[in-house]
Amino acid sequence: MLHAIVMAGGSGTRFWPWSRRRRPKQLLPLVGAQPILRATVERILPLVSGDRVWVVTGSETATAVRSLLPEVPAENVLAEPVGRDTAACAGYAAHAVLRLDPRAVCAMLPADHIIGQEERFRTAVAAGAAHVVERGGLLTFGIRPGRPETGYGYLELGSLESTVGDWSIHRLERFVEKPSLEVARRYVEEYDYLWNSGIFVWQAGELLDEVQRQLPALASGLERIAQALGGSDRDAALAEIYPRLPAISVDYGVMEGAANLWSIPVDFPWSDVGSWPALAELLSPDEGGNASRGRTVSVDSAGNLLFSDGPVVAVSGVDDLVIAATPDAVLVIPKEHAQRVKELVAKLEELGLDDVL
Amino acid sequence: MLHAIVMAGGSGTRFWPWSRRRRPKQLLPLVGAQPILRATVERILPLVSGDRVWVVTGSETATAVRSLLPEVPAENVLAEPVGRDTAACAGYAAHAVLRLDPRAVCAMLPADHIIGQEERFRTAVAAGAAHVVERGGLLTFGIRPGRPETGYGYLELGSLESTVGDWSIHRLERFVEKPSLEVARRYVEEYDYLWNSGIFVWQAGELLDEVQRQLPALASGLERIAQALGGSDRDAALAEIYPRLPAISVDYGVMEGAANLWSIPVDFPWSDVGSWPALAELLSPDEGGNASRGRTVSVDSAGNLLFSDGPVVAVSGVDDLVIAATPDAVLVIPKEHAQRVKELVAKLEELGLDDVL
Repeated sequence: MLHAIVMAGGSGTRFWPWSRRRRPKQLLPLVGAQPILRATVERILPLVSGDRVWVVTGSETATAVRSLLPEVPAENVLAEPVGRDTAACAGYAAHAVLRLDPRAVCAMLPADHIIGQEERFRTAVAAGAAHVVERGGLLTFGIRPGRPETGYGYLELGSLESTVGDWSIHRLERFVEKPSLEVARRYVEEYDYLWNSGIFVWQAGELLDEVQRQLPALASGLERIAQALGGSDRDAALAEIYPRLPAISVDYGVMEGAANLWSIPVDFPWSDVGSWPALAELLSPDEGGNASRGRTVSVDSAGNLLFSDGPVVAVSGVDDLVIAATPDAVLVIPKEHAQRVKELVAKLEELGLDDVL
Repeated sequence: MLHAIVMAGGSGTRFWPWSRRRRPKQLLPLVGAQPILRATVERILPLVSGDRVWVVTGSETATAVRSLLPEVPAENVLAEPVGRDTAACAGYAAHAVLRLDPRAVCAMLPADHIIGQEERFRTAVAAGAAHVVERGGLLTFGIRPGRPETGYGYLELGSLESTVGDWSIHRLERFVEKPSLEVARRYVEEYDYLWNSGIFVWQAGELLDEVQRQLPALASGLERIAQALGGSDRDAALAEIYPRLPAISVDYGVMEGAANLWSIPVDFPWSDVGSWPALAELLSPDEGGNASRGRTVSVDSAGNLLFSDGPVVAVSGVDDLVIAATPDAVLVIPKEHAQRVKELVAKLEELGLDDVL
């Protein structure tokens, strides 16, 4: 059976001050009225019933996640004591799923992506699942690059192997590191290079076989956790073992070294909304030429993101800034350096301003 | 006897969002912990006992002013139904004072100035009061220009007439309009040109004589109000007559045309804190080179005013901005255009965002 594993870890400092430790990005209504995690789950529910939806999230947010997702059984919300990157997350989920369904196929879904044309999205996931049941291997979805993005890893497509409905399934030739701008510009022109969406499909058992083969230390830690799942010592085992699991992404740690890799090029609208400027691009500009959300007022200002989660934001004579306000914290940073918000959050931590973290 | 008339009108939009309709500039703790109005009153109390201190303020703020100033009798807080500039304010106060003290001398003190060396300030006021008792006339205090300021009116000193203690009392030759930058630079070099501080001393009766002579419409309105003072129809008379008084400043309307004018050049530290950048100049820069008040954090940013009345303000990679935050409103504006905050406030009003005005 197909299971959806929603990866909802991540501290989400990139959306500070809107995002906080206890309100990470996936719990924010980034677009529309509901938290992006809820939108992610609703998107897959027509394909995967609630009892086969799993969410891996941090201990601090597990309670909030459970109340946000009444369709998902409470025990399907897997709390990580600490985040140990996506290989540990995927392996933990695979063990949990296999206890209930030894032939489980997993669609790994980041909780914090925006996806349009949802029915097409679901047919792509279903096509991928059907393919890995038949042919085995690990399957990725690749996004046609819409711009010469240097912040993403890319996938290089190999030969076309089959088609399922609308979708063509290719060998995945290799993972490509974040490119230079020049190379990224070339990739936009070529058919064979796609953004790595971070959405994957595989059989749970096969994923664990690859972990065993490539990351034996992770595999043995996960094995000890698996033995405790369902028992009274589960939480103690997680608390003891999980923090010491190797922290490595499933892309680098498992997929790059796997023998049997597939990719489906997809064309539905997709954004990982990875930063304040990415959110700005999802908003229609106001009459002043600013992307604006919440109560904002501008005079002689353009190209800004004016974001408010409460306070009135009023600006005059400033351009190309991110200005984001909540009742207890305000961020001002040039759009082109918006990734440096992490540095500010680190400084707030250093200064002990924990009430706004 | 010497009375202190504290002029505490003014809507204070220049410090929005810190200042509001119900919390104008004079009620803010601009410097130090107490509201600037309270600091103004405490500064004069060693010279003028509380029962001879009067405050003219807006109806909306009269209650707050009374509770802020327990030393001042409640009936000495004169509420203007609407502000009608300083000639009306001075005339209204003169009538009120004369009812209790027919020989009253008034020191007119703006509620929202910062003044250092307070004992020297008081000796200057006392010297001015002694002079007008002896020689009559209207007396101003002039501030030695510390910079080529084009936003102030200037005083041109005339001949030295007398000295009282440390202070020299000159004829006031004329009032000078706000100068060009070139002219203002020259004034910094010359002895004879001083900033008009807006602090005045005169006998209440003589002020009203000048109003009668130069502004008869104002005089007759004030006369009708004076007849109602102390009676049960006082509030009705104020509500009816005050809004229709001519609105003109005491500088333009009365002093420029007065025959007998004096000025004392003073050298105590003075600031009218007329804008956000003026407040920035009163703050010591933090280690990042920003003037900062409240909880603020900066990275690679310099020359900013980072002001918070609650929220944490975090900035990265921005220079020479005013960033001012309260729990319900945030302002971002370049320092050099900070006077344009009035425009933003007007726009907020137009948009009906009254809760933050």
